[in-house]
Amino acid sequence: MADNPTIQQLKRLERDLWLRTYLMGILEFDGETKAPPKGAPARAEAMGALAGEYHEALTSASAQELIAQLEEAAAAGELDEQTATELRVLAREQREAVAIPTEEAAAWSKLTSEANAVWHKAKLANDWESFAPYIDRILAALKRQAACIDSTRDPYDVWLDQYERGMNSAAYDQFFDQVKATVVPLVHEIGKHPQPEAPFLTARVPESVQLDIARELMDIVGLDPEASVLDCVEHPFTNGMAPGDVRITTHIYENNLLSNVFSVIHEAGHAIYEQNIDPAYAYTCLGTGSTMGIHESQSRFFENIVGRSRAFMGPLLAVLRKHVPEAYGSVSEDQLYRAANIALPQLIRTEADELTYPLHIMVRYDIERMLFAGEATARDIPELWAQFTRTYLGLDVPNDTDGCLQDTHWSSGSFGYFPSYALGSAYGAQMVPAMAADGVDVDAACAAGDLAPVRTWLREKIWRWGAGKDAPELILNACGAPFDATFYCDYLQKKFSKLYGL
Amino acid sequence: MADNPTIQQLKRLERDLWLRTYLMGILEFDGETKAPPKGAPARAEAMGALAGEYHEALTSASAQELIAQLEEAAAAGELDEQTATELRVLAREQREAVAIPTEEAAAWSKLTSEANAVWHKAKLANDWESFAPYIDRILAALKRQAACIDSTRDPYDVWLDQYERGMNSAAYDQFFDQVKATVVPLVHEIGKHPQPEAPFLTARVPESVQLDIARELMDIVGLDPEASVLDCVEHPFTNGMAPGDVRITTHIYENNLLSNVFSVIHEAGHAIYEQNIDPAYAYTCLGTGSTMGIHESQSRFFENIVGRSRAFMGPLLAVLRKHVPEAYGSVSEDQLYRAANIALPQLIRTEADELTYPLHIMVRYDIERMLFAGEATARDIPELWAQFTRTYLGLDVPNDTDGCLQDTHWSSGSFGYFPSYALGSAYGAQMVPAMAADGVDVDAACAAGDLAPVRTWLREKIWRWGAGKDAPELILNACGAPFDATFYCDYLQKKFSKLYGL
Repeated sequence: MADNPTIQQLKRLERDLWLRTYLMGILEFDGETKAPPKGAPARAEAMGALAGEYHEALTSASAQELIAQLEEAAAAGELDEQTATELRVLAREQREAVAIPTEEAAAWSKLTSEANAVWHKAKLANDWESFAPYIDRILAALKRQAACIDSTRDPYDVWLDQYERGMNSAAYDQFFDQVKATVVPLVHEIGKHPQPEAPFLTARVPESVQLDIARELMDIVGLDPEASVLDCVEHPFTNGMAPGDVRITTHIYENNLLSNVFSVIHEAGHAIYEQNIDPAYAYTCLGTGSTMGIHESQSRFFENIVGRSRAFMGPLLAVLRKHVPEAYGSVSEDQLYRAANIALPQLIRTEADELTYPLHIMVRYDIERMLFAGEATARDIPELWAQFTRTYLGLDVPNDTDGCLQDTHWSSGSFGYFPSYALGSAYGAQMVPAMAADGVDVDAACAAGDLAPVRTWLREKIWRWGAGKDAPELILNACGAPFDATFYCDYLQKKFSKLYGL
Repeated sequence: MADNPTIQQLKRLERDLWLRTYLMGILEFDGETKAPPKGAPARAEAMGALAGEYHEALTSASAQELIAQLEEAAAAGELDEQTATELRVLAREQREAVAIPTEEAAAWSKLTSEANAVWHKAKLANDWESFAPYIDRILAALKRQAACIDSTRDPYDVWLDQYERGMNSAAYDQFFDQVKATVVPLVHEIGKHPQPEAPFLTARVPESVQLDIARELMDIVGLDPEASVLDCVEHPFTNGMAPGDVRITTHIYENNLLSNVFSVIHEAGHAIYEQNIDPAYAYTCLGTGSTMGIHESQSRFFENIVGRSRAFMGPLLAVLRKHVPEAYGSVSEDQLYRAANIALPQLIRTEADELTYPLHIMVRYDIERMLFAGEATARDIPELWAQFTRTYLGLDVPNDTDGCLQDTHWSSGSFGYFPSYALGSAYGAQMVPAMAADGVDVDAACAAGDLAPVRTWLREKIWRWGAGKDAPELILNACGAPFDATFYCDYLQKKFSKLYGL
């Protein structure tokens, strides 16, 4: 059936959808890095038009008929494996897009656009009250939409599954309970111990030098320089535009070199994933990364498990000494290791260290869960935020700007998204023993500054599959067992007990 | 008829076409400035798809029916002025696009794509013979296509009109005869005089300093910095992407500051035109510049008539002294003026000075004319090139790489394009006395470094009209008389006689 005109139609539809996604990616990157301020309205016009064209192409009557025809062919075993996978992924996306009535989608777009603008002002003015009504309206809309997508499931479960296929609140409850039991006492214990002194952390390193360092780190992670781009932005992100074109970004603080170092390694982890998807998936719906959690597992694997490991301090210090001899010439690997792994609770999620990061996610998860369960409304959020922050991080929240107004996600309607951020590190921790079982010694690769064996394993087990497999299948195939947070908890327990001499 | 649904359809069609053009502009800019090398195939895929979508939207049966309906309404006087203008411009574009049969267009796309690739190699290898057959095939195709567009006209006239509406070979003959009579003897005379010595021309000025200078020059031309972008590329260009977003580019040679200076002023001239089109034309087919010649008239007005004028040397020298005091501190305005206006024949068009530039165009025009008249074929071109170069520029052509293979234009099928390059300077020269008649003293504005009066005139007479008027109408409205090359010839005669003391 390979030359079947129906399959050709599917490939054309996918190419058409790819084109819109690619163009939106280019526009976004251009907007963040290059476009002049007054170009924003034209870009917004183009973005809106492309999003509309994408939706129209995906949900048109002819596209629905095409998918239905192909599902019959698939049931009859007439599709090759790749086409069957494309069909499965695209059919799910189409089904969910069609499920939301047009008026509901239009109202949603208007509501979240307004909410986002109100949030920007509210954050600056520490004014939760002005923003709270939007949260209630967003929640009501999300519950209606969840019922459209799958009326048989709990609405929060529907949204958790949207961001991380296969997950639900029962699974997250179990995961966070396990993390809580490990991390909360660990952070409490560490609080009794002195933090390392590391004056080199704030040494001034000019932007051009930091960019040279960034490029060397991209090489070590293994990015193809002919297929990658690095640029500076306000909030770093990665975009896998197309085969042969992956863009990473960083934000340079001249008196905080390590922020750039680990941000670049993190984004390079996202980028190398996109760069190693099976070339046969190019221009299809499979030609991008899998779930949010899997993508974050790759960035955090490189940032934390590799980048902040004791073994990697040798190669890392060599790069820093080469470019910043005056500040790093007399720093030892141990000193760098301790400085790169300071665990210290503070209020802002995006500045959190490896150990306290999941606690920030737990604050958000617990609140989201209560909101969907009807146990709280938007007006209760500041108090709940204060309460959970005290319980998990041991901190008082002085204001909402640094509390429940700090993140943009809820203002654009992304409830159920935060929890997937915490899974990444846990997926990654489970991969280390799986690599060992396959003969890949992560520590040895880190110490040698040659990550080729690690890349080979990740390419085979994770990267090449693109969006063709969801997280549960990827983890099972890669690690030989379902996801289990024990590996992550053990990893944190061992690493930070030893670091702080507990 | 303003709320007429047919008019709404027209506006939607124009917005749809604008979107494709905008996206192709962003892709081109991104490709030249940022994208990694391996991103090229994806960009080509997207470019091809967008071009196809543009053609489809413009020529679809429904678009043809729409234009036909609106032309009836226009004939009945039912359209407002702007809509009538949009209709006129779009209808012409549609008529010409529909005229070329689909198979002819597809064959053309394939032929020119191959020809361009062959030209790249041929230029490097000084191998005209490999490229010549493509020129003959391109010419045959251009004759067929010209017959589709307008079988009543001479094919070359059809193409001259495509690039510069209202022009034909009779008008160009007259223009070039006049220019020839002035410039050829002038260049010959200058050759007998010594050239000025100006060692500061090759002073090394680092890229960052040259970029600072470029930004000051953009300010002087009058670009809105919130709506403009400057970047570095191999071959400078300007792209008016959208309302509020105009991009200019330059190429920095560290030992040739003035190349960057005049290139930036040139591109800024293109850019300020795009930036000052009537905002009511945004997202319509009128929201871009008029003909090639008019666009070039604006860039060359700022580059030469302003930028290389004696009066502007004061403000220009102030900028150069501020940023490069060591090289320009002791240079006088007269020395700078003479150095910025060295007239010296050489082989490469893109490196030609103000005076000898039109001679390069005449070489190409004479050859194109003979090819279309059947008086020569591709194999005759090298000899003709040598002959015309000797006659006009007084130079021998040592090889085809620096001769008839130097430009890319013919390889992409652009015959009839070159002549429009020469018109720009001539249009601009005619505007100076027209400005004077309206009370605008260009010299005084240059000397003051405040070009606001010049901008006000150009905005009113040229810029605001966008693509709504062709060159003949713009010139007539702006100058109160049809185009007349006498102004240009007089300008060159006076300027260069005085400079070289003839």
